[in-house]
Amino acid sequence: MTDWGQLAADRLIEIAKCSESGPGVTRLPFTREHADAVKLIEGWMQDAGLETHLDAAGTLVGRTKFTGASQTLYMGSHQDSVRHGGAYDGIMGVALPVLALKLLKDECITLTFNVEILAFADEEGVRFPTALIGSRALAGTYDPRVLEIQDRDGISIDKAMRAFGLSPENIPKLKRNNNQTLGFVEVHIEQGPMLQDEDLSLGVVTAICGIERHSVTFHGVSGHAGTLPMRNRQDALVGASQLISFVNELALKTEHLRATVGALDISPNVVNAVPNEARLTVEMRSADDSIRAEAAQKIEDQAKAIAEAQGLTISYNKTYAQPAQQCADSLRTPLSDAVKSKLGRALALPSGATHDASAMADLGPMAMLFVRCKDGISHNPDEYASPEDMGDAVQVLAQFIKNMAAKI
Amino acid sequence: MTDWGQLAADRLIEIAKCSESGPGVTRLPFTREHADAVKLIEGWMQDAGLETHLDAAGTLVGRTKFTGASQTLYMGSHQDSVRHGGAYDGIMGVALPVLALKLLKDECITLTFNVEILAFADEEGVRFPTALIGSRALAGTYDPRVLEIQDRDGISIDKAMRAFGLSPENIPKLKRNNNQTLGFVEVHIEQGPMLQDEDLSLGVVTAICGIERHSVTFHGVSGHAGTLPMRNRQDALVGASQLISFVNELALKTEHLRATVGALDISPNVVNAVPNEARLTVEMRSADDSIRAEAAQKIEDQAKAIAEAQGLTISYNKTYAQPAQQCADSLRTPLSDAVKSKLGRALALPSGATHDASAMADLGPMAMLFVRCKDGISHNPDEYASPEDMGDAVQVLAQFIKNMAAKI
Repeated sequence: MTDWGQLAADRLIEIAKCSESGPGVTRLPFTREHADAVKLIEGWMQDAGLETHLDAAGTLVGRTKFTGASQTLYMGSHQDSVRHGGAYDGIMGVALPVLALKLLKDECITLTFNVEILAFADEEGVRFPTALIGSRALAGTYDPRVLEIQDRDGISIDKAMRAFGLSPENIPKLKRNNNQTLGFVEVHIEQGPMLQDEDLSLGVVTAICGIERHSVTFHGVSGHAGTLPMRNRQDALVGASQLISFVNELALKTEHLRATVGALDISPNVVNAVPNEARLTVEMRSADDSIRAEAAQKIEDQAKAIAEAQGLTISYNKTYAQPAQQCADSLRTPLSDAVKSKLGRALALPSGATHDASAMADLGPMAMLFVRCKDGISHNPDEYASPEDMGDAVQVLAQFIKNMAAKI
Repeated sequence: MTDWGQLAADRLIEIAKCSESGPGVTRLPFTREHADAVKLIEGWMQDAGLETHLDAAGTLVGRTKFTGASQTLYMGSHQDSVRHGGAYDGIMGVALPVLALKLLKDECITLTFNVEILAFADEEGVRFPTALIGSRALAGTYDPRVLEIQDRDGISIDKAMRAFGLSPENIPKLKRNNNQTLGFVEVHIEQGPMLQDEDLSLGVVTAICGIERHSVTFHGVSGHAGTLPMRNRQDALVGASQLISFVNELALKTEHLRATVGALDISPNVVNAVPNEARLTVEMRSADDSIRAEAAQKIEDQAKAIAEAQGLTISYNKTYAQPAQQCADSLRTPLSDAVKSKLGRALALPSGATHDASAMADLGPMAMLFVRCKDGISHNPDEYASPEDMGDAVQVLAQFIKNMAAKI
């Protein structure tokens, strides 16, 4: 009997070698490492009985052989990594559904719908300051202007794609038919500690959190730290500190909210001067947009109150907002049923990070399966998912496909 | 009748032109600008009947003509500025006592002691990462090893001094006799807002504040701002923020203490990652060393308590300490009397900044007279002291010298 988890682990170790030199995995889109990875994934797909092609956006597509069905279920994730990343983020979400289809093929199960496994070129957005071209192309939200964006060597996406053998002018033709889409399911490492804490190999995602980012600058007055009396100070860093504490306390007491001050820079930033400027970012994430909006308002109000109390002026801007995306019951229920039949229970948890599934949600229903991630570590060479947990995921995905087939 | 304040203002405007180009005044030691300034100051001194020479450390000395007296009163300050500084810091403390001696000469007053006006080459420490060579030479605390220190062009102090026509091997011979020293009096702009707030042109310094600096690093664990639950976080910036608030609150409620977090850097410093490291400085200043020591202990204790509560580790180092230096009653009383007779009252206030007087305190008694500084602004092209206030200072200094003469 095939040890699916061990087979997955072996394949992920092999494809991790398709990497720039240095610690961990560095595999950027439209590079030699990407081409090497595509060759390996093609082999996996063909081994599972899939027909493969590289689409105009650089997505490697593995499709079940023609059965006459009109509906298609999409599964997959991205082949690329961050710099010095791990061997699981993204690529595991390609390897595992391929093995699930191999398992179904071994069991001689014929499906009543098509399945396409997708290995997207670029989700991390590391080489170019954009991402998700492959998934947006399928969903019909692709904007051709992104082709002009350049990497740090001045190579545009258009040029990089052509050097990779692609014809980006054909990307708009990739859009799939919404009415013939059963949905998209993405398997991903959790990138957090919740499954480890719950002693579970797998969990079912409820929603991809909405994200909101604020850029806040407190403006005060600098002065000599020895000569400026305390009561006369307009210390921008004191204001910033009060806001940082407030953001943290608010998120600790608000269920389903994560809020972080991740970046902070002050001026003049010397030991003996009162800081006259503090620039910081606040990021809020929640699977519930109303929780996020309420927190955003509280944080903005508090920042302005702090500025007034400290004699500071404030520049406050919302720099980014992306609504939460709920996972569809049509996929989530059969996925939860499969997890339950394997583990006894299906833990429901939000995805704090964005994924290809965020873009694929514009095509149709979307769901995600999380795999336990050792110590929550991700985007790091120490990233790890065990063969046993990946074996559970392969079996759950196969069962999920069977559950879907039974429904249709 | 001479308008002493206007004369002072005219001279300071003229010497401000001895500057590198750019906003405000930039006059660094052992440069052409320094040489130009020395020529002007020599003229002022000779106009006041003083005999001048440039000593081996680059200090321009103007001495009353030989009267047979053995005791000497020293007065003065530094000729150099910070980059893009003002026209008053330092150089005003040379110009005003020269005018006070000119006033006494005009009144045909003969002193029973010698007076030396000193225009030190380097107090700001901008060109070389050291300072106070001239004053330390007189006090006998000069360390010849500083001559090896280089500026950012790789020119050593030794080389810069020789190019300026000095013989630094003779610096050790400059030490004055402690027993023949009446003391050192420095006039300086306040660099703070207290005199302006009190509507007074002048104030008498009680002490030069002691300084203590701590370097604090909180070490936590980074993670994805979207995937790391709030309760699992070890956010170094949250710890740092709590300490910054504590330092500010402690200084606000502790009389005679100033405490500042002036520098803060965090890692990885990106919008979507929990900070794993926050490095900050704490500076405490007080004219009372016991107040400073008590505050330092409270801040260190609190930093460690915060680290423990937040699951962080902490690196805590005292990087610098300099005790407070009290102004001597032997000088301060006749100086206060002179201020009182001019203004009706003599406000006593500490000096939060270090001055040449800090080094001269090792030679003998030390005192300082502060001149009102517009809006407390200093080290800035907008630095300003009015002709009227400087006129008060000239008259007070002349009266002070008379008071000293009456005592001896």
